[in-house]
Amino acid sequence: MTEKGIKTKQLILNSIIEHVHLCGVNETSMGDIIAISGVKKGNLYFYFKNKEELILETLKEAHRRYQEYLSQNTAHVSDPLEKIEAMINAVVDYHTRRKFKGGCIFGNTALEMADKSSKYRAFIHDVFSQWIAWIRTHLETAITMGLMEHSTPVQELSVHIIAALEGGIMLSKVTKNADALNAAVRGIHELLRHYEIVNVNNGDRHAHKAENKRKSI
Amino acid sequence: MTEKGIKTKQLILNSIIEHVHLCGVNETSMGDIIAISGVKKGNLYFYFKNKEELILETLKEAHRRYQEYLSQNTAHVSDPLEKIEAMINAVVDYHTRRKFKGGCIFGNTALEMADKSSKYRAFIHDVFSQWIAWIRTHLETAITMGLMEHSTPVQELSVHIIAALEGGIMLSKVTKNADALNAAVRGIHELLRHYEIVNVNNGDRHAHKAENKRKSI
Repeated sequence: MTEKGIKTKQLILNSIIEHVHLCGVNETSMGDIIAISGVKKGNLYFYFKNKEELILETLKEAHRRYQEYLSQNTAHVSDPLEKIEAMINAVVDYHTRRKFKGGCIFGNTALEMADKSSKYRAFIHDVFSQWIAWIRTHLETAITMGLMEHSTPVQELSVHIIAALEGGIMLSKVTKNADALNAAVRGIHELLRHYEIVNVNNGDRHAHKAENKRKSI
Repeated sequence: MTEKGIKTKQLILNSIIEHVHLCGVNETSMGDIIAISGVKKGNLYFYFKNKEELILETLKEAHRRYQEYLSQNTAHVSDPLEKIEAMINAVVDYHTRRKFKGGCIFGNTALEMADKSSKYRAFIHDVFSQWIAWIRTHLETAITMGLMEHSTPVQELSVHIIAALEGGIMLSKVTKNADALNAAVRGIHELLRHYEIVNVNNGDRHAHKAENKRKSI
């Protein structure tokens, strides 16, 4: 594909992400895509085999962006548990800024398409598996570093964190305020602290961090 | 309305619940409703003002049934924390028996309709508010009975439990196995135990219950 072609394809995807986010897969018609992107039907079919491929590519672009956003908001943190907290804060910020409009595009697609299309199901499965694996990796690092109990059920805890976040986003989408998502997040924090080893180097971990902060002022 | 009329109305609602559960609101057309219920268009409009009213009544019937199901599975338990656990077990059983097909009809409707219709949003808001309030009441009883710490954030914990359950159901709908929902539930149990007062009457609460069970055999 020519450079111009790649650009056009990208422009089409960029233009319809928000529509898919707000309306879902089935309520995004080829007519909507033509109207929003300003690209003619024949051209759309030059770049994408069919509507399914086009929407799947759109969701993949949404996923790439979301991963980039989370990565930007966690890259500066080295402590594995603080990294997880930074990811959670970034998720809360993202949805609060959107005023919970649309909710989570991946959660929406999961509920809308999981029983209807194996391709969408496989994609959404990958999205959540990668997210869960990311948390798990950092929990395992925390255990190796002696910050967390060896008995921590890392896989289950990682799944629980994503479940609570997704459920919290859904409830906040209904109420249109952050209370539900914040409540879900508070539970996650309590659960992480439940498995955390508070005494590191004969000092309280949180107190130790506070001490470091004071020193750096 | 005559007794026959009430029966017909109920038959219409009963016949389309599963379709709405699996396909959602927008993918349930009047054509589908006519085909599934076997009731002619004119008759449908005699009982319901429009499609919105018909589907809202269907969701209310689904809610009534779900509440009845949960009530049946928790009525025999008197301990407030065991009552919450019995409710959670009933939720897991329900979705496991359905092999996670359709997921949660209320969660689905929340994600599909919260941004599109204030009537659906208000209904779903009520569903989740009632469920959260039910948990909160039992947590408050547990505190009054000295089974749980006075500092337990009852509202936030109740919201977290529903968020984790709904997120777990969503993830299990994607993977088509119980692992995700079970992981979400394990986190809920750990969180409940985190706030639980384990020493009651100078004895371990769980050990005490086990002892009672042994006595009753």
